[in-house]
Amino acid sequence: MRAFADVQALVFDVFGTVVDWRGGVAREAAPFLARHAPGADPAAFADAWRRRYSPAMEEVRSGRRPFTRLDILHRENLEAVLPEFRIDPAGVPAAELDALNLAWHRLDPWPHSVAGLTRLKRRFIIAPLSNGNIRLMLDMARRAGLPWDAILGAEVAQAYKPTPEAYLRTAEVLMLRPEQVCLVAAHNGDLAAARGCGLCTAFIARPTEHGPDQTTDLRAEQDWEAVAGDMEDLARQLGL
Amino acid sequence: MRAFADVQALVFDVFGTVVDWRGGVAREAAPFLARHAPGADPAAFADAWRRRYSPAMEEVRSGRRPFTRLDILHRENLEAVLPEFRIDPAGVPAAELDALNLAWHRLDPWPHSVAGLTRLKRRFIIAPLSNGNIRLMLDMARRAGLPWDAILGAEVAQAYKPTPEAYLRTAEVLMLRPEQVCLVAAHNGDLAAARGCGLCTAFIARPTEHGPDQTTDLRAEQDWEAVAGDMEDLARQLGL
Repeated sequence: MRAFADVQALVFDVFGTVVDWRGGVAREAAPFLARHAPGADPAAFADAWRRRYSPAMEEVRSGRRPFTRLDILHRENLEAVLPEFRIDPAGVPAAELDALNLAWHRLDPWPHSVAGLTRLKRRFIIAPLSNGNIRLMLDMARRAGLPWDAILGAEVAQAYKPTPEAYLRTAEVLMLRPEQVCLVAAHNGDLAAARGCGLCTAFIARPTEHGPDQTTDLRAEQDWEAVAGDMEDLARQLGL
Repeated sequence: MRAFADVQALVFDVFGTVVDWRGGVAREAAPFLARHAPGADPAAFADAWRRRYSPAMEEVRSGRRPFTRLDILHRENLEAVLPEFRIDPAGVPAAELDALNLAWHRLDPWPHSVAGLTRLKRRFIIAPLSNGNIRLMLDMARRAGLPWDAILGAEVAQAYKPTPEAYLRTAEVLMLRPEQVCLVAAHNGDLAAARGCGLCTAFIARPTEHGPDQTTDLRAEQDWEAVAGDMEDLARQLGL
């Protein structure tokens, strides 16, 4: 595609775009909930934990809090969400909460993610541009076989998406102009922020990221440079 | 080995330890010298260029200059070294110097480096802890097939070795204690600085890094936790 003629690097949103966070967190939370809140719905627990994700980062984005890696925010959010499920955080050993917090390091890729990334890597530099921290992304990649060329993102940029610095500093460390970098994401808001910084954009539809009743990001809301159904579809569209 | 029982990550010096910078830079400089300084020795050119490496970083380490990525220091050093070979920098197109500067992105691994890293990766997180910048390490890894889990080092730490922050911040982003991280290097000084920060250490002998008349780093000068002849020897010693 002509829009990709100058693109040298593809950078990826990860939670929701490359991996299924909801299914993975629910799977990891199920035995915990069976012990501490019998009958609780693991998917609802994943949703409740994730609901605190953006507000926690907003403390950093607003400047009210210095940059703090996502594993720490996830751990704080975990303690905060337990009372919603009638679990007293003080009644659970810290080591058990630490272990559950690693659920985010053990998420499974969507079908076609690994095969698509492997094809895309033939022509492009590929790296995550996630709000997840380096160790989180690294553990996930080792477990799932994600063939990243480097781990980039919020911790390297010291800024959380959709702050412009998250996109611009990622292009900067790649020694590329923004238009030589394409963000691949399942979220229109992420792509809009990247486009605002001059990046190329590619949308991948993930209509069940939030479960069967998802109402957001069901389709591309702008004329993104590419719109694909999955990662291998994107590779095919880019001639790989 | 018992000393490695708690080690979770191996981080690597790269120039000299994983790749042969002298041979690679000489190879890339040869056609340039044939055009601009016929008869000049490409290996001597590589040595002269490299001689300006540590002094340039010292400007940053001392605080006299803000952190500046190695590609920029290499490019400045290239212009500075040309007169030593009776080449007028003003007489060479900038694009030609930019291209030659990428010699450092195209270095070949020593024999056994890729096979050894691949074996070590089975048990350990593996990442460069080089003074080379992210894009340099990334290009080198793509070309040579170095199977890094992440690209760490000076640009992520925003500090050049042997400044303690280079080692300590690398352990920090890996969410490991210093003693859970082992530096693998061919340079006793690098290992001494890492040990001073609490890291585990492994020496790999590279007695021809500086050519046939090398006088430094011919052998381990302290009781490093491992001493190996090449990367596969290290893997073997670690039971991989």
